[in-house]
Amino acid sequence: MINISSVIEISGTVAFAISGSFSAMQKRLDVFGVLIMGFVTAIGGGTIRDVLIGHTPVGWMRDYQLPLIILGTVIATIFFKKYIKIFKTTLFLFDALGLGLFTIIGIQKGIDAGLNPGVCVALGTITGCFGGVVRDILLNDIPLIFRKEIYATACIIGGTLYMLLIDHLSTDVVEIVAVAVVCAIRIVAVKYELSLPKFYA
Amino acid sequence: MINISSVIEISGTVAFAISGSFSAMQKRLDVFGVLIMGFVTAIGGGTIRDVLIGHTPVGWMRDYQLPLIILGTVIATIFFKKYIKIFKTTLFLFDALGLGLFTIIGIQKGIDAGLNPGVCVALGTITGCFGGVVRDILLNDIPLIFRKEIYATACIIGGTLYMLLIDHLSTDVVEIVAVAVVCAIRIVAVKYELSLPKFYA
Amino acid sequence: MINISSVIEISGTVAFAISGSFSAMQKRLDVFGVLIMGFVTAIGGGTIRDVLIGHTPVGWMRDYQLPLIILGTVIATIFFKKYIKIFKTTLFLFDALGLGLFTIIGIQKGIDAGLNPGVCVALGTITGCFGGVVRDILLNDIPLIFRKEIYATACIIGGTLYMLLIDHLSTDVVEIVAVAVVCAIRIVAVKYELSLPKFYA
Repeated sequence: MINISSVIEISGTVAFAISGSFSAMQKRLDVFGVLIMGFVTAIGGGTIRDVLIGHTPVGWMRDYQLPLIILGTVIATIFFKKYIKIFKTTLFLFDALGLGLFTIIGIQKGIDAGLNPGVCVALGTITGCFGGVVRDILLNDIPLIFRKEIYATACIIGGTLYMLLIDHLSTDVVEIVAVAVVCAIRIVAVKYELSLPKFYA
Repeated sequence: MINISSVIEISGTVAFAISGSFSAMQKRLDVFGVLIMGFVTAIGGGTIRDVLIGHTPVGWMRDYQLPLIILGTVIATIFFKKYIKIFKTTLFLFDALGLGLFTIIGIQKGIDAGLNPGVCVALGTITGCFGGVVRDILLNDIPLIFRKEIYATACIIGGTLYMLLIDHLSTDVVEIVAVAVVCAIRIVAVKYELSLPKFYA
Repeated sequence: MINISSVIEISGTVAFAISGSFSAMQKRLDVFGVLIMGFVTAIGGGTIRDVLIGHTPVGWMRDYQLPLIILGTVIATIFFKKYIKIFKTTLFLFDALGLGLFTIIGIQKGIDAGLNPGVCVALGTITGCFGGVVRDILLNDIPLIFRKEIYATACIIGGTLYMLLIDHLSTDVVEIVAVAVVCAIRIVAVKYELSLPKFYA
């Protein structure tokens, strides 16, 4: 039986791996650099989360499937790079779905570790966003999510909602609501080019 | 009863959070970026220390108070950014005190973990200085402490003194001496614009 | 009795520490920055590996000898920086040997932790290469190994060979073969200026 949440997780991982390897090709890295950037973007957030809560060996080391999926995605990205732009909207939707699901996964790991609600939301945000942060640091940019677009904010709002609802509704319902909220915020933010205010010093 | 060392720790955390969020505003990050930079600067050193010694979940995850203090500090920094420069000297003193106290906390964690004296001093220095290192990496600068001013050196000297004295004097006395030495070195270094020698290759 | 593999490990560590501190002097860091860059380049890969598999306190914290060797190497590099270029070939050979040995050490830690073969090769590559990655991030460059020269690729090929042979030959033989292959690939790659293909997006 196909598990819906593992399909979404894989879709999100694929979207993140494409984003990382595509950025690496734009920065003219060699094929190893492209491979590493694909991996790091896809698994960086979960790896940082696992290290911070002491859940080691970290997730991807205990998983046979995910590294192979990322490897295949990076190779496909290299071969089909011309056509990536055609799928821009599809990829954005995968990315939004993956972001929502990664947030939920991070929060649940926090709850399992008995951490307080604020820390759980932080872990969800780290899982969703910090792969991209590591990607940007390795490519020598100031992380995108600190500069424009509503990205981490979507995780924080969806995650806070999750923590508020989890004691009152069934887990399934809360998961769907939280992922939907994260996706909806991302879609609205990109469609209307919303961004967070800045306060220059 | 108010605990003097926790007052100093909070003052240091506040000074570090201001420094991080202020740097982020200067680099024109959005409000989320400013928040993250405040957190990372304040807790980055202790987080790296806890990860390296395997003391997980890391410190701030087991603390209710500190994240709220940092959050409040960042919000206040955003609203009162015009006035920050007036408090420049006060902030510098908080920063120097926090640096000293963070160094001591790091050393004590090393001693508790049964590590050798050199490693304990290294852990103290990491606790005091690496929040700023992470801040500079995220803002895409070469870390300030590798380039100018005597900063880590103050931690190393104060920390070494701590290790030399701890078997001969009471812990309270050694703590005060070590924090005072770190502060004094920082104040003298900044006042007389001292810096470490450089050897160009 | 002198242990041949610990001689190679120390030679590799020395070569890595020289590389880090030399890069730091070229970027005009102060003496503390030069020291830190020497350490980070020499121990960064093993530290990241230990953190990811939860082998904490990380390796260099449980070692008296290695930190002292690195300290001595950095001091010698500062004093003899003029003469470093004369030993360029010697240093390159040490670096290639160290890379091979670090790869083997990383793989063996993975095997000991019961991780799957692909992850073991990844851990070998991380141990060999990620000290240089951290060096480049701290110095605000895009990591060299993502951009040019065959470096990580040597670890991946040598490491894969190790995993394929380890069930069929004695450990000693497999270690020698794997280190020799990593070294040979590095020497050929540098001599003939080989690099990985790039695919620009």
